[in-house]
Amino acid sequence: MRGKVYLVGAGPGEPDLLTVRAAQILARAGIVFHDALVNPEVIALAAAAELVPVGKRCGRHSTAQKFINKRLVDAAGKYETVVRLKGGDPMMFGRAQEEIDALSAAGLRYEVVPGVTSALAASADLGISLTRRGISRSVAFVTPRVGEGEEPGNWVRAALAADTAAIYMGAGEAASISSALIAGGKPATTPVVLIENASLPDSRWIAGRLADLPILAKTGRGGPALILVGEVYNKVSSMESVQHERISA
Amino acid sequence: MRGKVYLVGAGPGEPDLLTVRAAQILARAGIVFHDALVNPEVIALAAAAELVPVGKRCGRHSTAQKFINKRLVDAAGKYETVVRLKGGDPMMFGRAQEEIDALSAAGLRYEVVPGVTSALAASADLGISLTRRGISRSVAFVTPRVGEGEEPGNWVRAALAADTAAIYMGAGEAASISSALIAGGKPATTPVVLIENASLPDSRWIAGRLADLPILAKTGRGGPALILVGEVYNKVSSMESVQHERISA
Repeated sequence: MRGKVYLVGAGPGEPDLLTVRAAQILARAGIVFHDALVNPEVIALAAAAELVPVGKRCGRHSTAQKFINKRLVDAAGKYETVVRLKGGDPMMFGRAQEEIDALSAAGLRYEVVPGVTSALAASADLGISLTRRGISRSVAFVTPRVGEGEEPGNWVRAALAADTAAIYMGAGEAASISSALIAGGKPATTPVVLIENASLPDSRWIAGRLADLPILAKTGRGGPALILVGEVYNKVSSMESVQHERISA
Repeated sequence: MRGKVYLVGAGPGEPDLLTVRAAQILARAGIVFHDALVNPEVIALAAAAELVPVGKRCGRHSTAQKFINKRLVDAAGKYETVVRLKGGDPMMFGRAQEEIDALSAAGLRYEVVPGVTSALAASADLGISLTRRGISRSVAFVTPRVGEGEEPGNWVRAALAADTAAIYMGAGEAASISSALIAGGKPATTPVVLIENASLPDSRWIAGRLADLPILAKTGRGGPALILVGEVYNKVSSMESVQHERISA
């Protein structure tokens, strides 16, 4: 047996925001290695598959990554359709390259199935576009999260330079994010939104100003969160919503 | 009749890279206003709908935009399910905000359905992740394309600051993009990839160095193109492919 390995984007959370192709591949999968944060309802679409939870979405644990790589390669010797299911899109903060390189080195066939990354789902929930004529024509997708043995990068520079910034996996470091952006020259009054569980029924967002980000983050409930920064979110303050909360600066 | 308006991401091109939700909404749509660049196979999923092509994806024609806004509002008086179908994701370079604001002002219900934006589909085609441990932890999505009456923005700054840049709608301005990035300090040897028709069977990419971008763009066939810039694309030079071409610096 020389199976094919699919690196599949599970999308932002809601099962119907999976791509049609991803749903079809999951339905015929023999084994699925899934991130811990992928919605169980999405995983359940792999009705006939052996399910193997692996690591976290955030990309820590370099030892675990090597182990995942090896398990993917081994699985292709036993199953025709092997799925590596990743939250959001595989190619955005997903450690996909290390897995692709391992599959490539083993001479295995693979295919990447893109997915809706959470900043897009969050924008849909909020009804606020990442770009907007006259206000934003550039968007930075960044993360302050550093992998094991990795040096802190220049994510701040990109977040400062873009009109809109989407900060992944940053809720736990809200205070240092806020300080770093303000120290870099972003006005303390820049609108920010912290959104948890984008796309899901319990999606929840809180809006405020960059200086208040640490306070906003403290009201979070610990779900996967995205921080959005930029003038386009000025609009949030005028939105009416019963299921969401707003803390003003 | 007070219909609901759905701003739906058509995804990168291939119909099976549409989300399940988008496919379901298209199937019950009464009318679909679609971008000129959306794949006819995707539009055909709206089997029962009146089809109205509107404008281009790139966001020019501000007069046309107002006309589209009005038509969306009017359509909600006649159809239960009105779809505004946009290439990629609606919230990324899609002029969605102007439509949302018009629907909001008219007191209409709307919903945004996210989609796979073309940089994610291009990354899947190439097998190269936008982010990579130790090399890239920030991605800028930018466009040099300016709307009517809009001032040139600082897209260059964001593209320079991020580890990886995805430049939308830039193939026609390849020479000025290359000059601007090099003038801004990006090494002329930075790897670039120009990819046309990402996700489609006729997907085609050409890799080279930033200084060669104008030459690479000239070999394009005029399809919707994305320019990717960054050290992660060093890997492209070692890839084997029969259906793709490579021009070396």
